[in-house]
Amino acid sequence: MSSTDTVTGLERMANLLRIHSIESTQESNSGHPTSCASMAEIISVLFFNVMHYDPKDPRNPAADRFVLSKGHCAPILYAAWAEAGAFPVADLKNLRKIDSDLEGHPTPRLNFIDVATGSLGQGLGFSCGMAYAGKYFDKSDYRVYCVLGDGETSEGSVWESFAFASFYKLDNLCAIIDVNRLGQSDPAPLQHHMETYQKRVDAFGWHAIVVNGQDVNELLAAFKEASEIKDKPTCILAKTFKGAGFKGIENELDWHGKPLGDKAPEILATLKKLVNEETFVRPQIPKIVAKVSEIKKDKEIKLSSPPNYDGKKEIATRLAHGTALEKLGKACEYVIGLDGDTKNSTYSIKFRDAFPKRFVECYIAEQNMVQVAIGIATRQRYISFVHTFAAFLLRAADQIRMGAISFTRVKYIGSHAGVSIGEDGPSQMALEDFAFFRTVPHIVCFYPSDAVSAERAVELAANYDGAVYIRTSRPNFPILYKNDEVFQIGKAKIIVESSADVCTIVAGGVTLHEAVKASEKLKGLGKAVRIIDLFTVKPIDRDTILKSVNATHGRLLIVEDHYLEGGLGEAVMAALADQTDIKIAHLAVQEVARSGKPAELLSKYGIDAEHIANAVEKLL
Amino acid sequence: MSSTDTVTGLERMANLLRIHSIESTQESNSGHPTSCASMAEIISVLFFNVMHYDPKDPRNPAADRFVLSKGHCAPILYAAWAEAGAFPVADLKNLRKIDSDLEGHPTPRLNFIDVATGSLGQGLGFSCGMAYAGKYFDKSDYRVYCVLGDGETSEGSVWESFAFASFYKLDNLCAIIDVNRLGQSDPAPLQHHMETYQKRVDAFGWHAIVVNGQDVNELLAAFKEASEIKDKPTCILAKTFKGAGFKGIENELDWHGKPLGDKAPEILATLKKLVNEETFVRPQIPKIVAKVSEIKKDKEIKLSSPPNYDGKKEIATRLAHGTALEKLGKACEYVIGLDGDTKNSTYSIKFRDAFPKRFVECYIAEQNMVQVAIGIATRQRYISFVHTFAAFLLRAADQIRMGAISFTRVKYIGSHAGVSIGEDGPSQMALEDFAFFRTVPHIVCFYPSDAVSAERAVELAANYDGAVYIRTSRPNFPILYKNDEVFQIGKAKIIVESSADVCTIVAGGVTLHEAVKASEKLKGLGKAVRIIDLFTVKPIDRDTILKSVNATHGRLLIVEDHYLEGGLGEAVMAALADQTDIKIAHLAVQEVARSGKPAELLSKYGIDAEHIANAVEKLL
Repeated sequence: MSSTDTVTGLERMANLLRIHSIESTQESNSGHPTSCASMAEIISVLFFNVMHYDPKDPRNPAADRFVLSKGHCAPILYAAWAEAGAFPVADLKNLRKIDSDLEGHPTPRLNFIDVATGSLGQGLGFSCGMAYAGKYFDKSDYRVYCVLGDGETSEGSVWESFAFASFYKLDNLCAIIDVNRLGQSDPAPLQHHMETYQKRVDAFGWHAIVVNGQDVNELLAAFKEASEIKDKPTCILAKTFKGAGFKGIENELDWHGKPLGDKAPEILATLKKLVNEETFVRPQIPKIVAKVSEIKKDKEIKLSSPPNYDGKKEIATRLAHGTALEKLGKACEYVIGLDGDTKNSTYSIKFRDAFPKRFVECYIAEQNMVQVAIGIATRQRYISFVHTFAAFLLRAADQIRMGAISFTRVKYIGSHAGVSIGEDGPSQMALEDFAFFRTVPHIVCFYPSDAVSAERAVELAANYDGAVYIRTSRPNFPILYKNDEVFQIGKAKIIVESSADVCTIVAGGVTLHEAVKASEKLKGLGKAVRIIDLFTVKPIDRDTILKSVNATHGRLLIVEDHYLEGGLGEAVMAALADQTDIKIAHLAVQEVARSGKPAELLSKYGIDAEHIANAVEKLL
Repeated sequence: MSSTDTVTGLERMANLLRIHSIESTQESNSGHPTSCASMAEIISVLFFNVMHYDPKDPRNPAADRFVLSKGHCAPILYAAWAEAGAFPVADLKNLRKIDSDLEGHPTPRLNFIDVATGSLGQGLGFSCGMAYAGKYFDKSDYRVYCVLGDGETSEGSVWESFAFASFYKLDNLCAIIDVNRLGQSDPAPLQHHMETYQKRVDAFGWHAIVVNGQDVNELLAAFKEASEIKDKPTCILAKTFKGAGFKGIENELDWHGKPLGDKAPEILATLKKLVNEETFVRPQIPKIVAKVSEIKKDKEIKLSSPPNYDGKKEIATRLAHGTALEKLGKACEYVIGLDGDTKNSTYSIKFRDAFPKRFVECYIAEQNMVQVAIGIATRQRYISFVHTFAAFLLRAADQIRMGAISFTRVKYIGSHAGVSIGEDGPSQMALEDFAFFRTVPHIVCFYPSDAVSAERAVELAANYDGAVYIRTSRPNFPILYKNDEVFQIGKAKIIVESSADVCTIVAGGVTLHEAVKASEKLKGLGKAVRIIDLFTVKPIDRDTILKSVNATHGRLLIVEDHYLEGGLGEAVMAALADQTDIKIAHLAVQEVARSGKPAELLSKYGIDAEHIANAVEKLL
């Protein structure tokens, strides 16, 4: 049992946080004060009794982590950090203003936020990544706390994370579900059936504790219990009320995402009496006790040895990726590999075999895998390389979108892109990956077309301070480059050229090799073409393309193993949009593909050497 | 207890299906015979004892449904349908060939497949949609069976479906998990811990039955028990072995996705002995017993009343969408609405309030929601309209991708697109929706910019025989069109024009209204511009754009509340790629957005009237 002073202090703090949540959302005339109110005691206890951290150094690597999965409750989170001393309490009134980083949902523009939330069901997965890193990489005692809403437990991603955390015995992880019964437009499906929550959480291998989430004493006891449980994570199931403490609003529907309006003054007056600011002494924040060793960062990360191909044997870029990742692992201890039970196809298995302790098998749960990767990459300690088929990375599209808002530097590796995978058929073929990944602000999208450039893409990815996508291919490709060829982000390569070229071809992966075949055929007909390997689709090398097109009479053919929309074609067109006098043709997949041999499919969908040669002739 | 003859017949059938699975994958030299082998008894019992269907009329609406969630086991599914008489057994040797519809993973190119599978964890959600339609819309007794792999139960989408099915008491649904222990690259996380599976399934509100999945007797008893359980769905947890019956391969790792090669002859010989084809009498298939009433389809679905706006009051397109959907519901009984707890924001609540029995609240589980919508839309009986914020539709990107491979005609409605939502911030802003949706083959992407066109978009969507995306906006917009304006898919509208126009502007939603403001400003400076409302971004009205650009001195400005990549800009550029002499400028969001007032954000990200006017002047 905690002392009466402690309990009273935390109760008063909870109400003070309620006051800030009301006042800041009144000021912004938008936001979610009732969703904040239900979790006021949880936040008060966590931030002013349980968590060890330093409000003046919020990204201290030894501090306990906190993730607000129910990101719409940003106001109370900001209030807690302000009351803790991270920034002036007066700033809370700038909530949601354009010149303030106190946004509607938390983002790492704030130095006390590690991951952006606001798309529900993602916070627990980020927390899993942090806890995995804490337990297995940092081998430190810091703990990870994550508050979820009840509504978001409908998201399957949450259950992927529950399964992951128990499988890996993350006893340094504590989730708190704020079961306030009410969703946005209806009660949440389980309402206050706490025993059903308990059964589910228990079945997924967690230690479950049901508490009255409005009771500081019960919360204190639960967090103590959580800290003592070994070999499994703990989930505190807090029965609460939406709008708790707001007379006339508490536990009522239709108060989601609304400031209290003219009900605010009376409620504020009541709460202020409970706090009694004049006599209120803030509870002390526990100091950091965990130790974390420093990670020495290289200025430049280099492959342990350069690419080493004889130029004769054909090699798949997915295999070269695996080779390069293994080399990177040798050179650099903070490279981490993750895969979703496809490691023998993506070749991340080469990294796993060499560095089993730095590899995380995430099983067939791509959303959680990406969340874990983002969590591992927080506080700039580790570099995560995430692997699966490019098609299945799309399962985590919303996580990747949110990762951009977190300014994550995760490297996404998608294998088996395009119809060139062959017989497995359309469900396994990524044909929209570039369309999606290119939208991520500041991402680098690599599309290596041979083993040498694939290895260099991996090396450049590790050094790039931001998100990266690498598209690898299933088939074996001829080697295009010498082992000592130098590659740069945003620099294309001209791989076939002569002074007599009559047309430029931009291609990538399998279609680049088809273009080479076409060029040989065309050469026989006395028509020389120039061929560009973009290497990075984003950023795109506008200069090289433009110069080449100008040198080839303004004729340009783009051919890609991707849908017509959003891939290489539109990337190149956009780069040249301000130009006149360029005539562009575009070959790409235009319908739902099917099973067949790779060569048959390339022909059927009009992107093989023969179609390329015909398209060039048509352009002339 | 079933008769010995029945059991023996089903056992022999199981082995015959194993034989076909081996032989067809030997022929194609690829595929997953070992994953087929573990489920041979399950398929035999389902297809030759339990399910009521007509192999000569596989899409009969009264037949039991079957979904193979573990789509890589297509060979044994095809074998069952062939043995049932749907097509010649000899065709099985065409597995994975380019001229055969027997693809590597099942697609509805085959008339006995309702939904494409092959991206794991999706089948149960499709099945939920079918079962929901059976119980609540068709009010029929047909049952829905879904076989899942154990590996795919790591996918959160599966648990979304488990939660959904128990919440809606889908006792006409029976899932079978083929717990064969081994994944692709490692054992599945729970291996053969059947009690853990049982606890999880039970906690999610299902009736769980653990059986030896290689035992026909146990399976028969389990399916009988399942058919008698009321008010909850049943999950049969079948303990099996990967490669069951394949000597030297059964229960061994590293046999995923590989034909048996030179091990095949001996194994086939053993199996053929067990079948003893000469004396084997095929079990009889149960006839269809359920009744389903015919749904009378209108030739053309019409809004119950035309748009009715006074032209003065500003209206949000999301609200107009809700109004139109309600009208559609009045006119047509087979329109279904679905939402993920955002119905008071997307305004699908208008449909819910008018037709509560045709509305499915799917809670915050977008993947399952889309799967349910696709399931409901199978056999061409119902038209599903799915709603959430456009940003959160991306949570189901892989489901939407697979929906395309299912040739589904689901209508996806995404609200709150772009930075114009304001203070909620970037996590809630779809800025990549068109980039993704445009890749879907044959989809129609609507971007209505006022209430009249929004209503007509909904009407056209209902009549379009394919997938549709409608992007709606949060802010109120002025009315642009008369109530009797006629709209067509692929036809843009010129909303501002004069003979003196010096530049064409293409815009949509909020930026269209900003463009109108800019045009007024420019007019004051003596510079007239032509403004195009695309209405559908895909297909795009190339003719109208081209004519307009040619009439405005080859100058074109595109401005959009979307990222630079894959949206209106690139769509227009691609449409005009073969043209020379056109100079294009493009305004779009180029970085991670933030919270603020809509007008402030439009200005900050360079897509408001002022930036438009400046961009036009720069083009001149």
